[in-house]
Amino acid sequence: MSGSMKAIVKHHRGPGAELQEVSIPAIREDEVLIRVKATSICGTDLHIYNWDNWSASRVHPPYVFGHEFSGEIVEIGDNVSNFQTGDYVSAETHLICGHCPQCLTGQYHICENTRIIGVDTQGCFAEYVALPASNLWLNPKDLPTDIASIQEPMGNAVHTVLNGDVAGKSVAIIGCGPIGLMAVGVAKSAGASQVIAIDLNPYRLKIAEEMGATSTIDAGVSHPVEEAKKLTNGHGLDVVCEMSGHPVAMDQGFKMITNGGRVSILSLPTTPVTIDVTNDIVFKGVHVQGITGRKMYETWQQVSRLLHSGRVDVKPIITHHFKLEDFEKGFQLMNEGKCGKVVLHP
Amino acid sequence: MSGSMKAIVKHHRGPGAELQEVSIPAIREDEVLIRVKATSICGTDLHIYNWDNWSASRVHPPYVFGHEFSGEIVEIGDNVSNFQTGDYVSAETHLICGHCPQCLTGQYHICENTRIIGVDTQGCFAEYVALPASNLWLNPKDLPTDIASIQEPMGNAVHTVLNGDVAGKSVAIIGCGPIGLMAVGVAKSAGASQVIAIDLNPYRLKIAEEMGATSTIDAGVSHPVEEAKKLTNGHGLDVVCEMSGHPVAMDQGFKMITNGGRVSILSLPTTPVTIDVTNDIVFKGVHVQGITGRKMYETWQQVSRLLHSGRVDVKPIITHHFKLEDFEKGFQLMNEGKCGKVVLHP
Amino acid sequence: MSGSMKAIVKHHRGPGAELQEVSIPAIREDEVLIRVKATSICGTDLHIYNWDNWSASRVHPPYVFGHEFSGEIVEIGDNVSNFQTGDYVSAETHLICGHCPQCLTGQYHICENTRIIGVDTQGCFAEYVALPASNLWLNPKDLPTDIASIQEPMGNAVHTVLNGDVAGKSVAIIGCGPIGLMAVGVAKSAGASQVIAIDLNPYRLKIAEEMGATSTIDAGVSHPVEEAKKLTNGHGLDVVCEMSGHPVAMDQGFKMITNGGRVSILSLPTTPVTIDVTNDIVFKGVHVQGITGRKMYETWQQVSRLLHSGRVDVKPIITHHFKLEDFEKGFQLMNEGKCGKVVLHP
Amino acid sequence: MSGSMKAIVKHHRGPGAELQEVSIPAIREDEVLIRVKATSICGTDLHIYNWDNWSASRVHPPYVFGHEFSGEIVEIGDNVSNFQTGDYVSAETHLICGHCPQCLTGQYHICENTRIIGVDTQGCFAEYVALPASNLWLNPKDLPTDIASIQEPMGNAVHTVLNGDVAGKSVAIIGCGPIGLMAVGVAKSAGASQVIAIDLNPYRLKIAEEMGATSTIDAGVSHPVEEAKKLTNGHGLDVVCEMSGHPVAMDQGFKMITNGGRVSILSLPTTPVTIDVTNDIVFKGVHVQGITGRKMYETWQQVSRLLHSGRVDVKPIITHHFKLEDFEKGFQLMNEGKCGKVVLHP
Repeated sequence: MSGSMKAIVKHHRGPGAELQEVSIPAIREDEVLIRVKATSICGTDLHIYNWDNWSASRVHPPYVFGHEFSGEIVEIGDNVSNFQTGDYVSAETHLICGHCPQCLTGQYHICENTRIIGVDTQGCFAEYVALPASNLWLNPKDLPTDIASIQEPMGNAVHTVLNGDVAGKSVAIIGCGPIGLMAVGVAKSAGASQVIAIDLNPYRLKIAEEMGATSTIDAGVSHPVEEAKKLTNGHGLDVVCEMSGHPVAMDQGFKMITNGGRVSILSLPTTPVTIDVTNDIVFKGVHVQGITGRKMYETWQQVSRLLHSGRVDVKPIITHHFKLEDFEKGFQLMNEGKCGKVVLHP
Repeated sequence: MSGSMKAIVKHHRGPGAELQEVSIPAIREDEVLIRVKATSICGTDLHIYNWDNWSASRVHPPYVFGHEFSGEIVEIGDNVSNFQTGDYVSAETHLICGHCPQCLTGQYHICENTRIIGVDTQGCFAEYVALPASNLWLNPKDLPTDIASIQEPMGNAVHTVLNGDVAGKSVAIIGCGPIGLMAVGVAKSAGASQVIAIDLNPYRLKIAEEMGATSTIDAGVSHPVEEAKKLTNGHGLDVVCEMSGHPVAMDQGFKMITNGGRVSILSLPTTPVTIDVTNDIVFKGVHVQGITGRKMYETWQQVSRLLHSGRVDVKPIITHHFKLEDFEKGFQLMNEGKCGKVVLHP
Repeated sequence: MSGSMKAIVKHHRGPGAELQEVSIPAIREDEVLIRVKATSICGTDLHIYNWDNWSASRVHPPYVFGHEFSGEIVEIGDNVSNFQTGDYVSAETHLICGHCPQCLTGQYHICENTRIIGVDTQGCFAEYVALPASNLWLNPKDLPTDIASIQEPMGNAVHTVLNGDVAGKSVAIIGCGPIGLMAVGVAKSAGASQVIAIDLNPYRLKIAEEMGATSTIDAGVSHPVEEAKKLTNGHGLDVVCEMSGHPVAMDQGFKMITNGGRVSILSLPTTPVTIDVTNDIVFKGVHVQGITGRKMYETWQQVSRLLHSGRVDVKPIITHHFKLEDFEKGFQLMNEGKCGKVVLHP
Repeated sequence: MSGSMKAIVKHHRGPGAELQEVSIPAIREDEVLIRVKATSICGTDLHIYNWDNWSASRVHPPYVFGHEFSGEIVEIGDNVSNFQTGDYVSAETHLICGHCPQCLTGQYHICENTRIIGVDTQGCFAEYVALPASNLWLNPKDLPTDIASIQEPMGNAVHTVLNGDVAGKSVAIIGCGPIGLMAVGVAKSAGASQVIAIDLNPYRLKIAEEMGATSTIDAGVSHPVEEAKKLTNGHGLDVVCEMSGHPVAMDQGFKMITNGGRVSILSLPTTPVTIDVTNDIVFKGVHVQGITGRKMYETWQQVSRLLHSGRVDVKPIITHHFKLEDFEKGFQLMNEGKCGKVVLHP
């Protein structure tokens, strides 16, 4: 397929992005071309848009960014056999090497040579995107396109929450951005008896309640550790999912965890964090898990089933929809923290 | 405390039981005396009432049977320190030795020297029961007494269903007696994306629907294996909980399990079962788990929280209430299969 | 590479095989051509040679059989990037589909569409073999060729023994064919405090001792269950690895397992097996695991490291070496049970 | 039993200790009196002897300290039923409450109300010690008394190393005090293909070699991270056991761990530690485990079996023996770092 398409291009090494008319990408023999139906904005995209230190060190403008989407296959490469034109798909964004020790032992999500779609390669903020067939996930026909688009970040939430038992347990979600809000829904759907959502933003705490939080703690109003202890008869939480990236909040997570509890960290603090290892990890016998990406493709299977069966309803999290060309409105809302998930429609 | 009380006594080696006036039991220094508020009838009690081969080989009439209950502590032994008069409790029914290899490694539920309350000792079908403090579970004040009474069998359901992952998985419950029905609710509350209930009894399948089954299969009407495969795109179930005890149903469980699936067996078939080990276990890489009792007391904690948080609502399962003296009505209903759980109130 | 080569051909639908001169196989773009240095005979090969019911229903003569080997890559396909000419390799024998639910969740060894090299495709009893690069395992340069050849069956032993904890545990290996003997060594190397080898063949029990068995039981002389109980103070074994395929021996395995123990079954009994599910699985809280193939490629990594580090020494198991053309001698010895592993050298 | 005995008494709030003649302790009805055969000095005892900040905040002189021992029961309390006079025992040093959430779920080693023998209660640096029967471990008759005495710290090593898979994995032990040295032996016995011992003390690294380390790194001579990477083809270690308590060494542990690896921390750094959570835990998908005490009594069973079966030989670690009255020599050697484990004989 040839011709041109609209795309949001990170056009220079500085803040901002531009809607441009670019060539529809050509596909290699192991790739497919997808017409994008919905594409959602991730916090990573915001970093790239705002041009922070991490972006400056990692991405190479000009290029099309964006990595969350759903769409329809319109062309397949010669070596692609298990997908066909018309299939409704989303995609895992980690491109892996297949031969490092992690890949050889099935831990693809922590491949030593991971590259990320829309960060290290051309992305999906566009009318079309070309991707390797090996990274596709087939969606049920009746899954709405905006919900299908946010499966990738939902996978982060599922990977974090379900990386240990939660049924009948008390779970705190620290940080209620879109992934934290999804985590609230996942914990609730997986049988947590208490789901405590913690944030500084009342707007987001309200969505947390809609997602099923049994309690919310506004960290600007009451003290999270004291409040969490009170809610658990003084014993502390069984599971803490750290999704804020703030050293103070992370420390609070370690203080509110019960002996033998699990602290699963998905967030990426921008500086090293000081941890009272002796009292908060060793004496308490705590397990700390670094979580990155999604188990390929166990997590996708869980996400797809939790969404399609209706066990988790993410509609309260998808707060805004814009046309692709109105992307600036979405990035602005995200910078203001006045939104859940923003979805663009090419 | 002295005096007499009403109790259902298994009075002779044969069918039936009698309401008798017997002495209120005296407590030892490590025991407490409990005034029974609610006591429910287990399938085991029915076996004893009907006097089957197992009962004849195991129990020693005359004695008070029954083991599921909730009640209030009215007297405590000299060495009991962590419970007090007025506490609202239920009890684990396995009395364990504490020094076999299983007890030493925390696997109390499979203690080599297990004795069972109401089977090997005096039980709780009475106004009062004396029990060791070490077997008590403290109930939340506001948990209804009938629900508190059925925590013990609910523990079997929780132990079976949650002995592996269920979130986002397909789960079949084979056999919808009260424990099977609880298992339906537990699987649903723990995030199973499909919960398929299978039985021959339409009355029970209807309750299964109320408990959240996403599909029911009447094994007298359609073929469970074919139906289950159809419901899972031909791949089979991720988890099968076998609670029927019928060799044919158990074999169907092995035929409907997917490669790598988990078959958790709580039922007690009365004869050895013929299994196609090569095709149904080895080539499929299936894990089979024998489940007995409740993890002490991890399972009790899960049960208590799932019930108290409202994550599992067992009300549809408790179909009948009688006064203690009307126990015959309860046993009759159970023999007819026209009930869920029957609760007696002393 | 063109020309002809020597190969052992299963030439007709009946007993036996023939050494023939056949064409060196051509490779596809995702394959490599390997010059075979050593190739070992598996029990499966013996079934094909002897032409039992299973073989008659599965394989399609004439074709080259054999699937265990080590060798050197002499030619690579156009799309092969992570291997090169001169690499010293062995290969996983399961050819998988990559898109069934098991493959998508990393359980490749139980792929629903598994085909097996040398059974469903051309094998390695030959001077050359063509295989997909995705199935290759790179060997350390200094690993002897005969030891490299038996990594595939060693993987079965490792998968079985290490599919749960063994350090400080008592382990029984029932059935001391080559894989059972490897299992003895693996259990010992992984810290089992007792490794009890059970067989009817004194020749093999002697090798079991060389492999580190702490006790051997000749099932023709003493009763395995009584003996095993005696060796474990009456409590029974923590782990039983069933590798005999005999229903009687399997039943003994279930009788000798301790409460809460693990029974891992690698063997393939030719008929369904009658199991006392109630007493031997449920009441004992036993876990039964069907084991097939090797985790791809976690098991290969374990095998490679246990062998290369010298933690397991398999030399006592490799009892016979022959030239490829003398293959009849090897099959005869195997039929007589007078050997461990037989290795052929093209 | 009445009369007096020799004991090492922490006699005042300051450095040092005194050999005193004190009363033989009386036992309660749930306790036994043990004649101490061997008692070994722990790092904790050294802290108390030297009187550091932790000691000053925790212990209450005058009292008898010490907690590692083996001995013979000479008297039993009225309520003790599963031990008898003449039994050869050691003891778990954590005294637990039995009713906190951790105790109720079998996680006794992290009981919220843990008290420690010889720290919070009278200890075993004496001819006799009185202890609750529930904390005893029965030793095999033929286990040497000095080896039986060091089972408690050996339990720390076993708990740390075996809290995840090690067979066929690469394991680093950072910090080669007596527990680190035991950890080397445990990792080796459990099938680790590489065991890398790291310390600054050549004396201890030499013992590490005797215990089976496949490599040693003198952190004063070469850089541990570079060296460890070199030894693992640049991929890093599968398992790091942190037993040094030094922030620098702990940081090195996080730098040398491979993606998806396990960092098990037994050490107690005296100050909070700065950790690069984003790069060393999250992106690498690392699991960090706080380890304290011993699983009661699963770890004791493992320790007992590994020692009694000869799978781990701790003799190279027990470098010095003294009479009880010569305890000063032992403490001096420990302060100089010129010893492995020091055993006192009353």
